[in-house]
Amino acid sequence: MSRPRFGIWLIGARGGVATTSIVGLAALKQKLVEPTGLVSGLPELAALEPAGWDDFLVGGHEIRDVRLADEALRLATSYRIIDQDLVAKVQEELERIDRRIRPGTICNVGTTIEQMAGPDVPRGESPREAIGRIGDDLNQFAEENGLEHVIVVNVASTEPSVDAASLPASWNEWEPLLESAETCPVPASTLYAIAALTSGCSYINFTPSLGSAPEAIDELARRHETRHMGCDGKTGETLMKSVLAPMFAARHLKVMSWVGHNIFGNLDGKVLDDPVNKRAKVASKDHLIGDILGYRPQTHVSIEYIESLGDWKTAWDHIHFQGFLGTPMTLQFTWQGSDSILAAPLVLDLVRFTELARRRGQTGRLTFLASFFKSPYGVDRQDFAGQFRLLTQWAGLED
Amino acid sequence: MSRPRFGIWLIGARGGVATTSIVGLAALKQKLVEPTGLVSGLPELAALEPAGWDDFLVGGHEIRDVRLADEALRLATSYRIIDQDLVAKVQEELERIDRRIRPGTICNVGTTIEQMAGPDVPRGESPREAIGRIGDDLNQFAEENGLEHVIVVNVASTEPSVDAASLPASWNEWEPLLESAETCPVPASTLYAIAALTSGCSYINFTPSLGSAPEAIDELARRHETRHMGCDGKTGETLMKSVLAPMFAARHLKVMSWVGHNIFGNLDGKVLDDPVNKRAKVASKDHLIGDILGYRPQTHVSIEYIESLGDWKTAWDHIHFQGFLGTPMTLQFTWQGSDSILAAPLVLDLVRFTELARRRGQTGRLTFLASFFKSPYGVDRQDFAGQFRLLTQWAGLED
Amino acid sequence: MSRPRFGIWLIGARGGVATTSIVGLAALKQKLVEPTGLVSGLPELAALEPAGWDDFLVGGHEIRDVRLADEALRLATSYRIIDQDLVAKVQEELERIDRRIRPGTICNVGTTIEQMAGPDVPRGESPREAIGRIGDDLNQFAEENGLEHVIVVNVASTEPSVDAASLPASWNEWEPLLESAETCPVPASTLYAIAALTSGCSYINFTPSLGSAPEAIDELARRHETRHMGCDGKTGETLMKSVLAPMFAARHLKVMSWVGHNIFGNLDGKVLDDPVNKRAKVASKDHLIGDILGYRPQTHVSIEYIESLGDWKTAWDHIHFQGFLGTPMTLQFTWQGSDSILAAPLVLDLVRFTELARRRGQTGRLTFLASFFKSPYGVDRQDFAGQFRLLTQWAGLED
Amino acid sequence: MSRPRFGIWLIGARGGVATTSIVGLAALKQKLVEPTGLVSGLPELAALEPAGWDDFLVGGHEIRDVRLADEALRLATSYRIIDQDLVAKVQEELERIDRRIRPGTICNVGTTIEQMAGPDVPRGESPREAIGRIGDDLNQFAEENGLEHVIVVNVASTEPSVDAASLPASWNEWEPLLESAETCPVPASTLYAIAALTSGCSYINFTPSLGSAPEAIDELARRHETRHMGCDGKTGETLMKSVLAPMFAARHLKVMSWVGHNIFGNLDGKVLDDPVNKRAKVASKDHLIGDILGYRPQTHVSIEYIESLGDWKTAWDHIHFQGFLGTPMTLQFTWQGSDSILAAPLVLDLVRFTELARRRGQTGRLTFLASFFKSPYGVDRQDFAGQFRLLTQWAGLED
Repeated sequence: MSRPRFGIWLIGARGGVATTSIVGLAALKQKLVEPTGLVSGLPELAALEPAGWDDFLVGGHEIRDVRLADEALRLATSYRIIDQDLVAKVQEELERIDRRIRPGTICNVGTTIEQMAGPDVPRGESPREAIGRIGDDLNQFAEENGLEHVIVVNVASTEPSVDAASLPASWNEWEPLLESAETCPVPASTLYAIAALTSGCSYINFTPSLGSAPEAIDELARRHETRHMGCDGKTGETLMKSVLAPMFAARHLKVMSWVGHNIFGNLDGKVLDDPVNKRAKVASKDHLIGDILGYRPQTHVSIEYIESLGDWKTAWDHIHFQGFLGTPMTLQFTWQGSDSILAAPLVLDLVRFTELARRRGQTGRLTFLASFFKSPYGVDRQDFAGQFRLLTQWAGLED
Repeated sequence: MSRPRFGIWLIGARGGVATTSIVGLAALKQKLVEPTGLVSGLPELAALEPAGWDDFLVGGHEIRDVRLADEALRLATSYRIIDQDLVAKVQEELERIDRRIRPGTICNVGTTIEQMAGPDVPRGESPREAIGRIGDDLNQFAEENGLEHVIVVNVASTEPSVDAASLPASWNEWEPLLESAETCPVPASTLYAIAALTSGCSYINFTPSLGSAPEAIDELARRHETRHMGCDGKTGETLMKSVLAPMFAARHLKVMSWVGHNIFGNLDGKVLDDPVNKRAKVASKDHLIGDILGYRPQTHVSIEYIESLGDWKTAWDHIHFQGFLGTPMTLQFTWQGSDSILAAPLVLDLVRFTELARRRGQTGRLTFLASFFKSPYGVDRQDFAGQFRLLTQWAGLED
Repeated sequence: MSRPRFGIWLIGARGGVATTSIVGLAALKQKLVEPTGLVSGLPELAALEPAGWDDFLVGGHEIRDVRLADEALRLATSYRIIDQDLVAKVQEELERIDRRIRPGTICNVGTTIEQMAGPDVPRGESPREAIGRIGDDLNQFAEENGLEHVIVVNVASTEPSVDAASLPASWNEWEPLLESAETCPVPASTLYAIAALTSGCSYINFTPSLGSAPEAIDELARRHETRHMGCDGKTGETLMKSVLAPMFAARHLKVMSWVGHNIFGNLDGKVLDDPVNKRAKVASKDHLIGDILGYRPQTHVSIEYIESLGDWKTAWDHIHFQGFLGTPMTLQFTWQGSDSILAAPLVLDLVRFTELARRRGQTGRLTFLASFFKSPYGVDRQDFAGQFRLLTQWAGLED
Repeated sequence: MSRPRFGIWLIGARGGVATTSIVGLAALKQKLVEPTGLVSGLPELAALEPAGWDDFLVGGHEIRDVRLADEALRLATSYRIIDQDLVAKVQEELERIDRRIRPGTICNVGTTIEQMAGPDVPRGESPREAIGRIGDDLNQFAEENGLEHVIVVNVASTEPSVDAASLPASWNEWEPLLESAETCPVPASTLYAIAALTSGCSYINFTPSLGSAPEAIDELARRHETRHMGCDGKTGETLMKSVLAPMFAARHLKVMSWVGHNIFGNLDGKVLDDPVNKRAKVASKDHLIGDILGYRPQTHVSIEYIESLGDWKTAWDHIHFQGFLGTPMTLQFTWQGSDSILAAPLVLDLVRFTELARRRGQTGRLTFLASFFKSPYGVDRQDFAGQFRLLTQWAGLED
């Protein structure tokens, strides 16, 4: 086994998505599983020569006082999403990674997330202090492990939404405001982004939180010759929307209403039970139907925390559309998928593709990764096939 | 209202799809309905300047002894797919068209369809006689009405399947066999195609019947500098398959099984209740999953005649797939659509696009129309988005 | 046709349920339809000799400024729930009934309903005035038409919920409070009940509004030797719950969660879009699962106004349950029914059974009608089969 | 732990249902699981004092050459229906039981089942020889283990159907025919029944195979003062039918069609893939809708073997019904349950209730157990609530 050259730094490192990514990476290293679910594992992309699994080392930030091994066991026994045998086989690796996980920040995360924080998490940090501390953790991780490059991925719970338009448009205006949480009301996800990009790391926002969305943060990335992308991993119901809505558009069928009802019971669901956190998520799940269709049918997205479902997110969508001669018709679908199992391979894909983009010298927003996100930065097209072509074109597979 | 320049000649002219197409065309001429469901009515395709609705005159062949107005009324009252008011408003036009419908042929259509034939339909015709009679009908239709060009569309019920590979590869070998039904065991749909193409008409096969699929018939089309395409209009469940299967492929999710259960109660359903007729349909609905995925998961397609549903075809599909770490997940959908309402606008679209292709001097197979068919002639790609791009590229909208 | 002996007085007389009941009654009188959907039309109950359809005459109260014939037409054309032909055939009867509909009261109905009131509806009535006026209308209806008995049925939109426990327990305490809306904060549904019962009419509350639920109103009914029952017609999703929950109980399967998502777009849906009106409805739809199971699994009921659906209420229920050895399993159902078509026959049934109860001298709460209601007055058992046996036992069909 | 007093003898003792029953019984003995899914574990039936789990000892017949522990492991890992930990904890018990399982008979089981038989299973036995051998096994099991009574339960795969009407009506006519498979064309399930009843054991037929259905076998049971019941455990889709059809009947809603589509991938599914075996199952799943409704709507039941689903049987039912004024409406449900997990507790329930019936001196058909079966012997009523009342009445809970 070669020495790892790249770091994966997970924000929310002991959450469901992170734990599944970590278990999966360990299993891939040990060749215990097939690359099913990994876009970067598609045979047709092999010519890109993405980094191997052994090239990656994992660390991260976490605010809760839990252990990776316990979380992995719960995914196996309570949630029934991973084989118990598999968890047993990667147990030691989980313990090694656990020791590389550092306390995160709760600056502007909202009360629901704040309440989850363990005793080690600093209280009352200013944004500047948080950024400094996070940057130190990232640098130390890279130096101690001799890593060539670190890719930071935000897989923490959704923060309350922030109006990006109200933020300073340039980094020079922004920088002085970092002194206090009052003058700089941006959430933790953005502070992680600032720390990562300033340290030369790449940054990926897998959540609908603010992250690196603001214009000034993109400027920061380009200034530091690094790269970022987001936001909100497109794993299930919204993936379906981005696949189905173009069909209605192409066939000139008029969508009258599109209702999506989502139920699940993992930690993310608990956080989304708080209306201020839910708002960002619902907006991210909802906008693309109108974007694709070119008109705004009535849409409704609900997300409910149903504890018994654990990580199994079930979405029921009801699409009411009008066909020829005005005749109303209906499409319904039920999607039953494990949230973490769907998300984890995309996290690993994003890391690999970002590393490839770095090799190619790309900086700023990585728009070719649009198909991975519900609300891709800098990309208007929302149809999955079109977004996926951005990837295959980047990969040199299509003109 | 200008004088019509083009003829639409429908095979199965008083069936559900034909009747709905006829009612729809009449309603479009009277500006009673919006162009919902018409691909050729998409605003982005307006620059193509497709022929206007007033440019078309309808005639056709039919074997059953029924009246168009009665069929249209049933669509409104028993099937609840068209407004009764609308039917009333086009009543006179239906009667005019009824008078232009001629007895079809039942040469090699199988016993289930044969039993539906009325007293006017000739018994015991040889293929050559049938072709001659059909050709005369087409020529007379064009001449009497001063039509520039006639497009023949097969919307008759599905015939028993024929092994295309067993047929002569060239028209010269084939032609002498037309003398008797024994030496030329091809079904009516192919005889209509031969008659149409020989007369210089365009031919569209909207059904899974043999039609113009054989190599020798394509040769005939090119020899007569005319054009054809098929087969089997992609209206509902199979459209969904061609939209969803690429998503599983792009995300490297492994489809383990794909079950599709279709129920409906119109005349087509009754014909498909005969296993020999059903076989062709099931094959056409089933092949594309493996074609798109690149491997063959277990698939199952069932089609059942459930009388109470009338024209409302309900499909339940259950897709069992494996994600990351081998975790099994499920997607189910229920599609509730009116078969005729979904098919009719595609018939009108195909006519308009075929007319445009003629203006552009295209002959042989019109492969740019692949997105309209379950089993497009001469096209391997089965993903809807890719097929639809063939159309938009042809239309000059994409490179 | 014999002279009608009984009156049906509908509160909300031009709403969807009332209009469908009226169209249906007229169609039954003219023998245009079968008694499908009518419990009182079951062959096994024929021996009860319920009153014939010609025995009933309809009148009612309404607050909106609309016409019955227009409402009926909308049910046929926009909502596609009734045949247009049928509406045409009962047109004259609708106009006759329209003339017997009087302005209702908006005393304490909440702002959402208040805003729907037309110019004829009195503003600022005291409860006593409203009761007086309603009573006069009822008496005049009975006298002018020579009716033996009048049955008042509340099918108006759901009012904001009221805490029944906060109301006076006896009629003597209550009566003096009627002077003003402040001292007597009960909604219109209860004022109609008071007026009806005081006038000797029977009263049926088909909605979750307060109606005759309070103890003191039941006392009033018994004092006037008349009868009443409610509340909230059990038409669709909740009917399913009362049928399915007992199965889980009998089989000792442990329901972990029961989620019900309801979407529809009629006027009732619009009113329920107001959270204060929705609360009463959700409570009525939700309680029975725990009542039947004997424990409280997590439940969730949502009701969303989706305009395109019109009267077609679609419910998706997801039941997550644990079987032997703790194995989790799932039942999902989708119910697609017309709200008004499901409710209307139950209104007619309740009228007929109430009339029969009067013949038998029954007063107070008619508990044998429990199976018709989501929250039956005076009945604890919530399983449909058990409730239905109350009816068949009352009918003498079972011991 | 007390010494077991009663024997459970399973036919098909290493199949999915048997293995799950065995694992479950062992887990119950070790108090590792709650009595979820066990009707006999309902608190309201505790007063009946059913035998405790320690009172039972398991043995059985099997034709396949497999091991219980392997089968149990597959239920845990491939099928994901049992916790792997639980299987590990009962491992030793499985091995003990394995040693008590004897080779079954393949007399008249049809070729599909025959092909599964291992080398130990006798070939070419006459019915009389098979009965003798089976009886010896049963007697030896009882004697060696000092058992007071043995209850034989058939949980083997479905045999090809036999016309019960063609069989001799009395045991005296039947007995001489046992000499050869030609004169006595009854399947193995019936030979087991004859052997069991003749030996004084109780017999329960949990499958749609012939078993103890014939009149002459019931006579045999009564002659030997023992008892029997069947047939075909009502676990999922058919349970739903027996719960939902009465709702449509009670509400006078007219069922126009009822389509049920079942997919699953366990061994039973494989056997049912053979049309001769499937016929008996489909008939048993289908008849009760007409029985409950009192008329015969169009029904359709399909059962497909979809390997990837393993023991997870998914049923999609589509019920098309007519409501008031003839308006068509739809109910769809999807049932996702583990076949073995649903069946196993019913097997244990039937054993316990049969033991109780023996204590009460009941012989012949145990009709109070009707609610457990799709086609209960000697019971006409098919509504679940009514059947369940037979049980609660027998238990003294209702009049």
